[in-house]
Amino acid sequence: MIKKNDAPIGVFDSGLGGLTVMREIIRQIPDERIVYFGDMARVPYGSKTQATIIHYTEQILNFLKTKEVKAIVVACNTASAYALEAVKDQVDVPIIGVVKPGARVAAATTKNNRIGVIGTEGTVDSGLYDEFIRKLNPKAEVFSKACPLFCPLVEEGLWHDEITTLVTERYMTELKEAGVDTLIMGCTHYPLLRSTLREVMGENVNLVNPAYETAVELRRTLEWKDILHEEGGSDDADRYRFYVSDASERFGRFAQAVLGFDIPAAEKINIEEF
Amino acid sequence: MIKKNDAPIGVFDSGLGGLTVMREIIRQIPDERIVYFGDMARVPYGSKTQATIIHYTEQILNFLKTKEVKAIVVACNTASAYALEAVKDQVDVPIIGVVKPGARVAAATTKNNRIGVIGTEGTVDSGLYDEFIRKLNPKAEVFSKACPLFCPLVEEGLWHDEITTLVTERYMTELKEAGVDTLIMGCTHYPLLRSTLREVMGENVNLVNPAYETAVELRRTLEWKDILHEEGGSDDADRYRFYVSDASERFGRFAQAVLGFDIPAAEKINIEEF
Repeated sequence: MIKKNDAPIGVFDSGLGGLTVMREIIRQIPDERIVYFGDMARVPYGSKTQATIIHYTEQILNFLKTKEVKAIVVACNTASAYALEAVKDQVDVPIIGVVKPGARVAAATTKNNRIGVIGTEGTVDSGLYDEFIRKLNPKAEVFSKACPLFCPLVEEGLWHDEITTLVTERYMTELKEAGVDTLIMGCTHYPLLRSTLREVMGENVNLVNPAYETAVELRRTLEWKDILHEEGGSDDADRYRFYVSDASERFGRFAQAVLGFDIPAAEKINIEEF
Repeated sequence: MIKKNDAPIGVFDSGLGGLTVMREIIRQIPDERIVYFGDMARVPYGSKTQATIIHYTEQILNFLKTKEVKAIVVACNTASAYALEAVKDQVDVPIIGVVKPGARVAAATTKNNRIGVIGTEGTVDSGLYDEFIRKLNPKAEVFSKACPLFCPLVEEGLWHDEITTLVTERYMTELKEAGVDTLIMGCTHYPLLRSTLREVMGENVNLVNPAYETAVELRRTLEWKDILHEEGGSDDADRYRFYVSDASERFGRFAQAVLGFDIPAAEKINIEEF
């Protein structure tokens, strides 16, 4: 029987993007064990319907249960926006999405109460960022924009490229006109475009990466439940495990680029069976 | 019991792109009934592994069997390249992919024996276009280039746009340097970028759309098996049926834009059950 404090945290995403959330968790609570699942066989989620995203999320939760995780992080904005509310009662461990923490910091830090949200079509269509932000700050006006080309550009490696700049300028036009002082990067791929977004939006717009606040909320939750991992324990090689629904070589390459260290080979599982 | 001649043709794709193949089939053999399946819940295929594509293709063939199709068209280059050979013995009706017909016309019409192939990562990595072309024309040299941004650009509606031109110029650089006189548009989305490809590649490069040759081969096969639909029959509204694994609104919009007529609502099925 695993002691609960030693149990891993489950982190999942539609694919690669959630690794930016995992990176933030590792930074803030480096002693924790993590099981990461990337749904590489069905990526992306952003253009799919709520019913499908809920179905996929349920399968992933069933898989993570078999790993006896002590907490779950939905490191995908689309799944957080479309599925978290519907599935949260199906698990008996804390489950944290990236939308609420991102909304909270934006609502608290905006000065002119004009907040931009960029994300997938699913995340934007869900309206969940707007809803959370307005609950926390009724004066806030939220301007949302779906940016479907950003994920493919990131996955193509064009993190710094004139094509990406041109696409960014196109997508940001309305948000700049709206005069937002805060911009939520509402998809886990987007922090990798931070420097381009900074360049296009200017120095005065605060770029919010929900991953940071999500890791803060995770840490607080583990403390509150008294299930933080005690210092030391397993060594690095053992600490992180990666599972994917499709054994793409890109996963390993991307993971190394984002996390900055060699990861053990990801194990392929048949997610349809869960 | 359906008479075999009156049975529908099954056409499937990872999502929307195969509609350009369906359009060509309708042009050439307008009396045929067609059942179209688009795997919208798991699109795209182009970045996924062969094992996953074979698994998905098997499920789709099982679904099409329930529709008692008389022939099957794999209207997806990635599935044609990765899965057709592995699954063809699992069906007892003719099954036609888009790769071989496209390779045949390119091999036969090139004058300088330098042929370019553009497609998804999966299609390019499979090497199947190269293999077929060299079998038919041993003198041919094949230059392949994966273009992962083309599908998202098409689905974003940027069929004619400076961003698309910039991306196309980038992707075509090597093929232009190689001096190809023939370019196979080896993904069903790409014919929608024909005018941009024409502009970037110049008037002297022959752009091959495998959909055309695929419809020719389908017609010949139906004639040879004596299962062409007899003239007349069902009216238009009844003739085409659409099934999808995710009930995206985009499907209907895109289908109308590509086919040029109103289609009946696509029915959502759970493809994992097949």
